[in-house]
Amino acid sequence: MNRICKLFNIKHPIIQGGMVWCSGWKLASAVSNAGGLGLIGAGSMHPDILRENITKCRAATDKPFGVNVPLLYPEIDKLMHILVEEDIKIVFTSAGNPKTWTGFLKEKGIKVAHVISNSRFAIKSEEAGVDAIVAEGFEAGGHNGREETTTLCLIPAVRRTTSLPLMAAGGIATAEAIAAAKALGADGVQIGTRFALTEESSAHINFKRLCLNLEEGDTRLLLKKISPTRMVKGKFTSAVEEAEISGASVDELKNLLGKGRAKKGIFEGDLEEGLIEIGQVASLFRKIQTVKEVMQELTQNDFID
Amino acid sequence: MNRICKLFNIKHPIIQGGMVWCSGWKLASAVSNAGGLGLIGAGSMHPDILRENITKCRAATDKPFGVNVPLLYPEIDKLMHILVEEDIKIVFTSAGNPKTWTGFLKEKGIKVAHVISNSRFAIKSEEAGVDAIVAEGFEAGGHNGREETTTLCLIPAVRRTTSLPLMAAGGIATAEAIAAAKALGADGVQIGTRFALTEESSAHINFKRLCLNLEEGDTRLLLKKISPTRMVKGKFTSAVEEAEISGASVDELKNLLGKGRAKKGIFEGDLEEGLIEIGQVASLFRKIQTVKEVMQELTQNDFID
Repeated sequence: MNRICKLFNIKHPIIQGGMVWCSGWKLASAVSNAGGLGLIGAGSMHPDILRENITKCRAATDKPFGVNVPLLYPEIDKLMHILVEEDIKIVFTSAGNPKTWTGFLKEKGIKVAHVISNSRFAIKSEEAGVDAIVAEGFEAGGHNGREETTTLCLIPAVRRTTSLPLMAAGGIATAEAIAAAKALGADGVQIGTRFALTEESSAHINFKRLCLNLEEGDTRLLLKKISPTRMVKGKFTSAVEEAEISGASVDELKNLLGKGRAKKGIFEGDLEEGLIEIGQVASLFRKIQTVKEVMQELTQNDFID
Repeated sequence: MNRICKLFNIKHPIIQGGMVWCSGWKLASAVSNAGGLGLIGAGSMHPDILRENITKCRAATDKPFGVNVPLLYPEIDKLMHILVEEDIKIVFTSAGNPKTWTGFLKEKGIKVAHVISNSRFAIKSEEAGVDAIVAEGFEAGGHNGREETTTLCLIPAVRRTTSLPLMAAGGIATAEAIAAAKALGADGVQIGTRFALTEESSAHINFKRLCLNLEEGDTRLLLKKISPTRMVKGKFTSAVEEAEISGASVDELKNLLGKGRAKKGIFEGDLEEGLIEIGQVASLFRKIQTVKEVMQELTQNDFID
């Protein structure tokens, strides 16, 4: 039996990545109901909103689901205790040191996966005691590694480093890419972009329509001096790119970025002033689908399990 | 039968990419003798040197081989006529408009493949009448596309665009990656980095040793204002990166680059002042092998043909 399926007690080794402003209870429960593993993305939720999403997700599915926690979350203590109180069984952590919280979560019997973008952090994650690793390449949307290693190069490198169950992420959105990830040594996949653009994603319709009309090359990895982020080209992005090309400092870039731009772009649908985070692979898709339709396409080949 | 094998009359759909200062007659003939397709890289050769390489390659193998021509080559007219005079049967073109020379070559009965980094150029190549396409992703060494699309995202996009025989390039160096490329829709692969580091590559031993000791993240895509190039981090690269971060102009970068740095780094082994071009995937390898050993590893799985 597939190790990812066994670990999380799911039918297909397909994880829906936790994404700011996209992955609430609706998306997570739909993915879990379709046999994958849905993750509530806590990164863009106040603690009380997270609690509400967990309650609603549990009401909407009797299948396993999890929560993704970016470790740079400001009220991380509060949030971790909510996860325990709410009896969450699966936590995916990202954007931080896996040593900080893995022990705490494991003691409570929670399964932990950590998202990394290089082999050094795969080793750190294993040392921290995680159950599984997500290795995410340069093509992924949103926050991204500094080393710019692509999924095709990253998965074999991480596979050589650790024997833990391994999920490939970044650029994976089709059954063919799942087969490719498996050929490279992954046990399963984490998919963000494709699910961000489904009916059940909480992203704004303007965001979905924009992302479903992209051409190749329409995303860029920018803000490298702050935290490398893949975003759609546009008015705001051009300003960032121009600032970066002309040598803007970290403070100048932070001022330009301001606060709340991801919410503005993804959740409120302000395509001019908002930050539109999405992966390179978005350009392959043209229509909003339900999670069920997407999962059927992803699992159409018998080689994926 | 595999379409790439049929097109070029070779045993394995594995092309050795044409690379400056690495791929002379020795490397090309060794790859062809091992059942792949060797390419003499004309980009770093004066016309008389190219002629010499063709003669020696023909003496060293009775198998098909080809020549790679970057279309920005200064004496391109002269070079194209040499290819015809020398009765070359296979030409791979890159770095330019496929319309300019494809007709000329096809009229002489030469098979033409063109290297692209996005689907728009795949369409242009098909319109120009090429026989096959190489699609090369962001992880590749040396000169690279501006859109930064990774191989994992690029191959499915190009596959949807054209029905021509398609070779995947960038980040491919193992049998597993070949299987992944095929899952994504490629008919074959073009491999650069792995062959650049073989015994038969004409690169300097210092270059090979350096590249066989890289860690993940040790290459960067730089010189984006001139022509994006993937290179190994080092003294010269740091100077480029600092200049770019602080907003250096195209002229300042051109001055910094100067002339002949790739030759200095790759062929003369000057690791301080030279430009060291190699792909991300180099970090997976630690020893110099013969082409025969590499080809055996690449073709070990029966699924590759």
